Amino acid sequence: MEHLSPQDIEQRYQFACEVAMAAADCAFGFYQQRNQLEVEHKGQDLQDVVSIADRTVEALARSMITGRFPDDDFLGEETGGGDENARCTWVVDPIDGTSCFLNGLHNWCVSIGILVAGEPTIGVVYDPNHRELFRACKGKGAWVNDAPMRVHSGTTVADGVMGVGTSHRVTPEIFVPFISALLHEGGMFIRSGSGALMTAWVAAGRLIGYYEPHMNAWDSLPGLVLVREAGGISNDFLANHGLLRGNPLLLANETLYRQLSGMIAHPLA
Amino acid sequence: MEHLSPQDIEQRYQFACEVAMAAADCAFGFYQQRNQLEVEHKGQDLQDVVSIADRTVEALARSMITGRFPDDDFLGEETGGGDENARCTWVVDPIDGTSCFLNGLHNWCVSIGILVAGEPTIGVVYDPNHRELFRACKGKGAWVNDAPMRVHSGTTVADGVMGVGTSHRVTPEIFVPFISALLHEGGMFIRSGSGALMTAWVAAGRLIGYYEPHMNAWDSLPGLVLVREAGGISNDFLANHGLLRGNPLLLANETLYRQLSGMIAHPLA
Repeated sequence: MEHLSPQDIEQRYQFACEVAMAAADCAFGFYQQRNQLEVEHKGQDLQDVVSIADRTVEALARSMITGRFPDDDFLGEETGGGDENARCTWVVDPIDGTSCFLNGLHNWCVSIGILVAGEPTIGVVYDPNHRELFRACKGKGAWVNDAPMRVHSGTTVADGVMGVGTSHRVTPEIFVPFISALLHEGGMFIRSGSGALMTAWVAAGRLIGYYEPHMNAWDSLPGLVLVREAGGISNDFLANHGLLRGNPLLLANETLYRQLSGMIAHPLA
Repeated sequence: MEHLSPQDIEQRYQFACEVAMAAADCAFGFYQQRNQLEVEHKGQDLQDVVSIADRTVEALARSMITGRFPDDDFLGEETGGGDENARCTWVVDPIDGTSCFLNGLHNWCVSIGILVAGEPTIGVVYDPNHRELFRACKGKGAWVNDAPMRVHSGTTVADGVMGVGTSHRVTPEIFVPFISALLHEGGMFIRSGSGALMTAWVAAGRLIGYYEPHMNAWDSLPGLVLVREAGGISNDFLANHGLLRGNPLLLANETLYRQLSGMIAHPLA
């Protein structure tokens, strides 16, 4: 099978944006329905509503992608898949920030990353609550809607706000000391509940960086491309089968990356 | 001076909603201008834009309030004031979540609380990014837009998401152990960057509770009323001159309040 040409990549870039927005429209319909169901059912069955939404939105994205590019590989949060040696792999999280979606908090997104010959090449995050499309393609810069993005220019952690995430896949002892170190250095953090969206905010210069001790590929791939194209750096997320097993993720500008990595006890690839 | 009648209180309740929305419209104008200035000035002078916005929005709220109710007392984040023995005190934070506002994150709000004879009686939080008005008046229930609010019905911290806040007014050693304990018990947290908005989300049942080791009255008064009217409880925030000096704040339903208070090393009033 031949390598992808620049035109092949551009077609996928444009289509990834279309898929993200179509998927987000679908998810937003469920989100609005959820608010109604919350009133009618007084908190019952919301987890079911979210599970149905997740699966339906992923099925929509998958059918669009495999219909248009039948030879591309697909890795979805809900349905799995993923071949590290594929020519082109679409990595999709239909709703990143599920607990925000579930609870009626407005911080969730659709996340699509594309690996070309194993390399993060396209990243798209769409936030339907605020109608913001974050997109980047290797060598073509990073954009939020029609505005170019650039990572924060801060030189100390006190110059802005850090994004953080954690999950019960890691023990608190891996995460909590980072928060302590950050606060001691005069820094501050948010945890919005959507890792993919916070990585997009790093690219947009709204956050000084992002750290999470274990992320999956479907949440982190778009951020790798968005942040690099916006002038920032990351650890080697794909090392040691990161595509299938996940890894820690640290994103920031080069100066802050060095400071932040010194606050992390857990080794970064 | 006579006590306020039920009609006097109802008039202030309605007017507080009007003031919050007018102030938020004004703040939102600055917020949109900020996005433009960020592009034009590449990150320069944003702190000045926020300071001007804060002062202008507070001046608008203050002039509306003192024009309509000239005998009422006023305590603002920007201009100070506040008499613990006043008949009626309006407590206003023109933009709660300043660093979100500054950095282009969409989690900030206008916060208005009213004390009547020293007692938290009216709470209003308006979130212009999502067009949600959270409001409560003692004895009249709590509402988000036209929907009644009820606190989360969870019985363990693993049943939902906790809101947290901190600041450099306290040492990390007061805050960090709470995060550690919460994660160890199977809980999870968000920190959106706006304390007042997270307290409103507790009232709406979107978060299971809220903890911050030191809050000021202008961020926390509305939440006291919103959460109590939505069926939850809090510590005695106004103890020991909390109106002027601030205090820790813990909000939750009665069952979760007991569990959460056991995770806090710092004593609660």
